[in-house]
Amino acid sequence: MQLGIYLLVAATALDLSVLAYPSPENPWTRPERLAARNVPERRSGSGLSNCHWDNVIALVELLQPNKSAALPYLNGNGNAPDRYARAAIQFQATDEPYIQDYMVGPLPISSRTTLQPLNYYYNKGVGKQRVYHTDLQAEIKFYAQIGASVADITLDLWNGTFMGLANDSIYLKGFEPLRISHRSAVTWGQFWGFPIGNPDDRAAVLPLGLYVKVDIYGRDPSKWSVHGWFYNGIFYRNTRAFRKAYFSPGFKKLGANVDGPWAQLNREGDPLPMDTVAAPLQVQPEGPRFGVDVKEKYVEWMDFSFYISFNRDTGMRLFDIKFRGERIIYELGLEEALSHYASNDPMQSGVAFLDTLEGFGRVAFELVQGYDCPSHATFLNTSFFTNEETRTHLNSICLFEMDTGHPLQRYASSNAVSVTKSMVFTVRSVSAVGNYDFIFDYEFYLDGSIHVTVRLSGYIQAAYWAHNSDYGFKIHDNLSGSMHDHVINYKLDMDVNGTANSLMKTTVVPTKERYPWSNGDWVNTMKLRKSFVNNERHSKINWSPNSATTYTVVNKDALNKYGEYRGYRISPVTSSTTFLTVQDSASLKKSGGWATHNLYALKQKDTELHSASPYNNLDTGNPVVNFDKYFDGESLDQEDLVLYDRPPQMINARSSMAIVPQNFHLDNPSRATRQQVRVTFGGGKLAQAEKFGSRHATCNFDMNNAAPNLEAYKGDLVVPKYPFLPNNATFVPVLPGS
Amino acid sequence: MQLGIYLLVAATALDLSVLAYPSPENPWTRPERLAARNVPERRSGSGLSNCHWDNVIALVELLQPNKSAALPYLNGNGNAPDRYARAAIQFQATDEPYIQDYMVGPLPISSRTTLQPLNYYYNKGVGKQRVYHTDLQAEIKFYAQIGASVADITLDLWNGTFMGLANDSIYLKGFEPLRISHRSAVTWGQFWGFPIGNPDDRAAVLPLGLYVKVDIYGRDPSKWSVHGWFYNGIFYRNTRAFRKAYFSPGFKKLGANVDGPWAQLNREGDPLPMDTVAAPLQVQPEGPRFGVDVKEKYVEWMDFSFYISFNRDTGMRLFDIKFRGERIIYELGLEEALSHYASNDPMQSGVAFLDTLEGFGRVAFELVQGYDCPSHATFLNTSFFTNEETRTHLNSICLFEMDTGHPLQRYASSNAVSVTKSMVFTVRSVSAVGNYDFIFDYEFYLDGSIHVTVRLSGYIQAAYWAHNSDYGFKIHDNLSGSMHDHVINYKLDMDVNGTANSLMKTTVVPTKERYPWSNGDWVNTMKLRKSFVNNERHSKINWSPNSATTYTVVNKDALNKYGEYRGYRISPVTSSTTFLTVQDSASLKKSGGWATHNLYALKQKDTELHSASPYNNLDTGNPVVNFDKYFDGESLDQEDLVLYDRPPQMINARSSMAIVPQNFHLDNPSRATRQQVRVTFGGGKLAQAEKFGSRHATCNFDMNNAAPNLEAYKGDLVVPKYPFLPNNATFVPVLPGS
Ligand SMILES: [Cu+2]
Ligand SMILES: [Cu+2]
Repeated sequence: MQLGIYLLVAATALDLSVLAYPSPENPWTRPERLAARNVPERRSGSGLSNCHWDNVIALVELLQPNKSAALPYLNGNGNAPDRYARAAIQFQATDEPYIQDYMVGPLPISSRTTLQPLNYYYNKGVGKQRVYHTDLQAEIKFYAQIGASVADITLDLWNGTFMGLANDSIYLKGFEPLRISHRSAVTWGQFWGFPIGNPDDRAAVLPLGLYVKVDIYGRDPSKWSVHGWFYNGIFYRNTRAFRKAYFSPGFKKLGANVDGPWAQLNREGDPLPMDTVAAPLQVQPEGPRFGVDVKEKYVEWMDFSFYISFNRDTGMRLFDIKFRGERIIYELGLEEALSHYASNDPMQSGVAFLDTLEGFGRVAFELVQGYDCPSHATFLNTSFFTNEETRTHLNSICLFEMDTGHPLQRYASSNAVSVTKSMVFTVRSVSAVGNYDFIFDYEFYLDGSIHVTVRLSGYIQAAYWAHNSDYGFKIHDNLSGSMHDHVINYKLDMDVNGTANSLMKTTVVPTKERYPWSNGDWVNTMKLRKSFVNNERHSKINWSPNSATTYTVVNKDALNKYGEYRGYRISPVTSSTTFLTVQDSASLKKSGGWATHNLYALKQKDTELHSASPYNNLDTGNPVVNFDKYFDGESLDQEDLVLYDRPPQMINARSSMAIVPQNFHLDNPSRATRQQVRVTFGGGKLAQAEKFGSRHATCNFDMNNAAPNLEAYKGDLVVPKYPFLPNNATFVPVLPGS
Repeated sequence: MQLGIYLLVAATALDLSVLAYPSPENPWTRPERLAARNVPERRSGSGLSNCHWDNVIALVELLQPNKSAALPYLNGNGNAPDRYARAAIQFQATDEPYIQDYMVGPLPISSRTTLQPLNYYYNKGVGKQRVYHTDLQAEIKFYAQIGASVADITLDLWNGTFMGLANDSIYLKGFEPLRISHRSAVTWGQFWGFPIGNPDDRAAVLPLGLYVKVDIYGRDPSKWSVHGWFYNGIFYRNTRAFRKAYFSPGFKKLGANVDGPWAQLNREGDPLPMDTVAAPLQVQPEGPRFGVDVKEKYVEWMDFSFYISFNRDTGMRLFDIKFRGERIIYELGLEEALSHYASNDPMQSGVAFLDTLEGFGRVAFELVQGYDCPSHATFLNTSFFTNEETRTHLNSICLFEMDTGHPLQRYASSNAVSVTKSMVFTVRSVSAVGNYDFIFDYEFYLDGSIHVTVRLSGYIQAAYWAHNSDYGFKIHDNLSGSMHDHVINYKLDMDVNGTANSLMKTTVVPTKERYPWSNGDWVNTMKLRKSFVNNERHSKINWSPNSATTYTVVNKDALNKYGEYRGYRISPVTSSTTFLTVQDSASLKKSGGWATHNLYALKQKDTELHSASPYNNLDTGNPVVNFDKYFDGESLDQEDLVLYDRPPQMINARSSMAIVPQNFHLDNPSRATRQQVRVTFGGGKLAQAEKFGSRHATCNFDMNNAAPNLEAYKGDLVVPKYPFLPNNATFVPVLPGS
């Protein structure tokens, strides 16, 4: 098999040194370092090229080792697991293109090395998915033909045309996911205005309100077809019917959404008072108080340690998170992010972005010093594979400690006051996916808790305003702030006192009780009701009203000295939409099972690695990972548990879930910090401040050290944004114009 | 009337100058300045003294002017409202002591000035409440007699006695609220250990598990009585029965909770790595970027302006909050805070702290520079009246701007990235109430939103651990982390586009629809369902599951240019217990109506000033303010609305609600800030950073300027903490030992 030989050759070119396991403390050979070598052969021969009928290497990166193999090694009682590459090939030299995953290994290449399909963690049975978007140039051409067929109309309506020419000032595009059924692949396209200047800015806020239904099934563009038009609330069966209506008397023409300063990202409006004065900022006068092994991406801050990993599909994830030397979390990372829209128009109604197809790692671009992260943050590079190349995102992860500005602890008595600062350590990356930038934080607190936070910022995918006041507010001349749910799914593989874990449920319930002292009277009061979520039959969980129920991962055999389970509790921090409103979405079909509840608990299995796959997006009714099928009645009693949950979502706001120790420590770990004070006062004497060995910097600090070096910003060569390609998937081989 | 004359004399001594209204921008004559003069006569004559049978002035402070009088003045079309003093007298020279509110005015004293009972905003009809706790010394003596009656037992159990002697090493106290019924005032006391050293530290974590039921009705201590004992789950009808059982064979003796480092607020545990390095901190290199009129407590930051007020009952509150010159909020402030406990023991089961009785203003002590607030914060003093004296809390409010450390806005395209810093302006005070310190923040954001945040820190009011595993986790040798709800109530008087306001309700609902384009098929989707909360009959509101419903204050006659209501939305930010779990609490009786729901809307009336009163605590079944009675069927359609809501509560965590503009501005106000950057990159050139006129400080900054001056801490003379007095109400005339 020619392809197999090619992949073996590619694997040979990998950097073998990074496959070593120098020590138990250093088990995670970072995927990006494995992929950090270009594969020189790939630009020539081997049947692979940039032509859209040729096969394409979509991915070569390190395959995440199975937990069953890694854990003995991490625990110091097993060998390092064999390492494999995960490779994905998009087979395009066929009438029915598909993408397929392979595993190559063990690495380095030896006589034991084999190439085999990577199927074991895809519960479809095979890591293989039909691709209906292959011929991107042909699609653009097809859309341009449609544009040409109504050029007189678009010229009349918006003084612009889309015909695939250099002077196009509008464009037409369809949206993911395609509606796949037997020999059909349907989408609705809409005409959009071009933003002034940089064409990938603001694209999402210039819809023009004319929609066309197309079927782009198959490789023969001559068989692609138009199935109707929609404008101003009226459906037209075909182009002729639409044209006829348009040129009939009394046809109502609607206004356009026109680019302008309102949509641009410059400073706008009257300058704010005193805003030219340098703003307050965080400084780090004596350098970082944490340790980073840059090569291994191993981090230590206070009582925490962990490894940072990175992959194309989901970006940054953390492994082997320990607090005071005890592993709490084996794996913590993003699985999928969904934006599900609704409107009365056929495009917006069907839009359900499953963003891993864009590749959160692929679009995790360089961070802006001093703005994305404090200037004094430590920045790390990441690498990823796209368009048959390995690329480096410079400075794409930042790590920094900061004073949150409010006390962690505070207590005043009549002659003393104690205050502890709430220092927090943050690991951050930003992924620019389409119209939104996702800001991902892992925050570590002195008390041993971890917060997983996502912030979204950017442009809404707006809808054209016409008869859709039930689907959002009107926000500009002809624009609806189209309603939509964001649902984000994380994997949280907790190992609390080992892997034999159970999920304790504690509910505060109102009750009435009679007590020995209550004189026979009923007392209205409340109680804790404790139970366990014992089986996957009951492990799809919604947060209860009034936050009455909490969920805690414990090991039933690990009690603290007072007889309580040593556990870690999973709680939402922020409050907002948390699961998908739309029920049985026709866009998501069988690919949204992880979006229907707040929290899911499953038994850990190497074969159930992820709740989702980017490939699901390609055919949502036939997903390679069907999360629902994981819930097959397995016991959750003293098993290795994996939780999937979501931080609640808010736009431009913090959205956060917390992983918090519960009866885990006998003390309060935050009491160990020196960043506290006890001021004793009174008695007519000067106050005495006990600072517990902490100190304030007393140097002359050159504020230039706290200023960012913005000219050093490099950016990335990968284009993150639509609109130019109807199919801008991560494995797109050709990006015209970029 | 002797008292009336006295109060007139007192009012004469007030500082008249601060009663002037120098300008429409300066309407709020701060209560503390009115009260800032001592009333020299009050230590002598006039029937007032420190004897517990004498009458006591409990309060003299400025009476908040009625909105009906203040608003025309604030709007520049009315005279300054007359000013009155609010005075409270506790009448103790009677068998049935009571506290009563009076109003004295207009001020300054003139022939028009009168003294009259202050009744108009108490819907009991009178601002007068029976006080059952008057004879504090007698109560201590009574408890000491009880302690003496079991001194042999307490000596045996805990090697300590409570007999009102200098060498007492334990003590006995009862809890609020008293259970008042016909000629009976019952409470359960418990024995507690004395903390080592400072006696008001850690009191709440040393319960000893022996309880005694007492009735302290009336002024004649000889008629007070013991009604039973409770120990280790067994109730004893009287002291003899308890003693008999105790000295019988087989009586089970339980362990004590003994003070030690575990309960103390020192640094504990192994020092953390690198913790002697000076920690990151926020600095303000070029001084504050906001304006404060210290005398008027008037503040301007960016597009916001507001006044800070202060009173004894509820501490800091804000008035006349404007954004871009438009009033959004007339009044915003705390109303009441409740901690309702539950356990199997008779004391903890009945504890329901209504904290305004302690006086949030009374216990709003000096803030610790660099720990409670950044060193560069601006600190303001406040004044309040307690124990017949006006006192000053030095540096008890802080104001500061900070960079929150994450982007407010962020968008990357292929050749540029835009990031805006999330600057926030915070106004903070801390009130040390009993075992908890409340950290109150008002946070102002560049987008025009305001967050109201409360953090609680301190000691739990722990329960003795005995047969109560259903009521909390065991956290120490004989200690239960006793379960309890915190419920906090704020008043939010919004004036959005004037006072004619309506409460819009917007719910995201799953639905299925047929569309012109859907080929006759049903489409599963979601919609907005909009309605109004039209009447007080429907205006007790709970947050809906999955945050599906939002509530927005609008003026139906004020549409923006796109036809949407210009509004402000009220949303929870954080997620936790939000209303009271216990239903129909026998402790709260008719005083907990504001704690049963998440949000309440009422028509504004001068006569419905507050949702609660400190006096409610004195007799919860007979409150001076019964919040439930406000809901009397008035229309909420285009009326002046007042909302009462609560930030959800978490211990040692942020708890926050947001007031957020919705379709209020045509632009995004945060775009006006200079604290943003647009970095353009690519094309092989150095990146270009557009900084919009902002700049970084380039000075040499003396870090000593960022170090707090802790020796300057003064503290306060008021003792904030129990346990020494069974009745430590704000108007307690004598604080023995303090
Ligand atoms: Cu969104
Ligand atoms: Cu509490």
